[in-house]
Amino acid sequence: MSIIKYDVIPLVVIKRLPRYHRVLSELSAKGIGRISSQELAATMKITASQLRQDLSCFGSFGQQGYGYRVDQLLTEVNQILGLNYGTGMILVGAGFLGKALVNYENFQKRGFTIQAVFDQDPEVVGQSVNGIKVSNVSGLATYLQKNPTEIGIICTPAPAAQEVADVMVQSGIKGIWNFAPISLKVPEGVHVEHVHISESLMVLSFKIRQQYPNGD
Amino acid sequence: MSIIKYDVIPLVVIKRLPRYHRVLSELSAKGIGRISSQELAATMKITASQLRQDLSCFGSFGQQGYGYRVDQLLTEVNQILGLNYGTGMILVGAGFLGKALVNYENFQKRGFTIQAVFDQDPEVVGQSVNGIKVSNVSGLATYLQKNPTEIGIICTPAPAAQEVADVMVQSGIKGIWNFAPISLKVPEGVHVEHVHISESLMVLSFKIRQQYPNGD
Repeated sequence: MSIIKYDVIPLVVIKRLPRYHRVLSELSAKGIGRISSQELAATMKITASQLRQDLSCFGSFGQQGYGYRVDQLLTEVNQILGLNYGTGMILVGAGFLGKALVNYENFQKRGFTIQAVFDQDPEVVGQSVNGIKVSNVSGLATYLQKNPTEIGIICTPAPAAQEVADVMVQSGIKGIWNFAPISLKVPEGVHVEHVHISESLMVLSFKIRQQYPNGD
Repeated sequence: MSIIKYDVIPLVVIKRLPRYHRVLSELSAKGIGRISSQELAATMKITASQLRQDLSCFGSFGQQGYGYRVDQLLTEVNQILGLNYGTGMILVGAGFLGKALVNYENFQKRGFTIQAVFDQDPEVVGQSVNGIKVSNVSGLATYLQKNPTEIGIICTPAPAAQEVADVMVQSGIKGIWNFAPISLKVPEGVHVEHVHISESLMVLSFKIRQQYPNGD
């Protein structure tokens, strides 16, 4: 099911969607039921015209003069983002970062569940991480053939990442969330989101050194 | 020292700087000495006119008809980003994520060094993480007064994060790299970069569900 009106939504709009999700979740948690487009734009730190453009990409939500209903907008954003669908994930590389992700509650809350964890280190295989027993990565392909999974998380060191990605792709994974510091090659139809953790550290360093004005 | 020509560089340009850093580092590692603005723009996935605008924010680098010298441009970008200056950092919250960061080599390579690690859990205090002994967070203010530090990393659970941030700010920290899932309040002159790890997972989820074309 797709509620998208446009064939291809500009990437810059897509990248703002998680922020809409966050802002709307916070408004909803505060019990705010309705918000004007001016206020929502200000909270999102975008212009009112950008806001209108963004929302027009997904269909029309607001009513002239009445603003937006927060819960309704949040539901729509969740649907667009594919949240709360019970998306299955597996993770390869149970080092500190891998373990941190398995223990991270925010995914679960949004409908993303890590169902299996793999590593190649015999000392790590068999360990229990947040209730999940770490399996040997040699069984990854067999597992995925028996348990088709949408998203694969790669937390291995860089040299192992491409090989793991290849197995994932051959076994039907549709999206890779890559924390390894290496660009992955994947065929058409498979998506990769590469998390560059240090990029925001560089931005922070820049702002400190250049006495950049506050705010994000 | 600042080599910035403009008073305030647009945030969208600043956020592209780490990508310049990455792309130029990769070109340099491949032994590529010179690149045309068309090629660099294509590698950066921006237009040639965006590229010219970006670089004009920092001074003029290229020579008409000769393109850019990769190493020179990389040096300038490093300077602008404040890399390779030996920036000191401390980290609070030595759970899995904190330990992952302490073990992450990519910071060190770029001149960022984690010099001390703090936690409140008596079982964690005293542990050694990548050669650094974890100290009790009760000693954070005293440590920072004796060892002025530029950047504080917060990897605590959400409820503890604001209190830790307050101590950091009172003790002269200029920038906070926040991994706790909570918005921090800091005074004017202190910068916060909030790492929202799940945002890229949501973007990935969106692309899978909407059959978005490949590429980032």
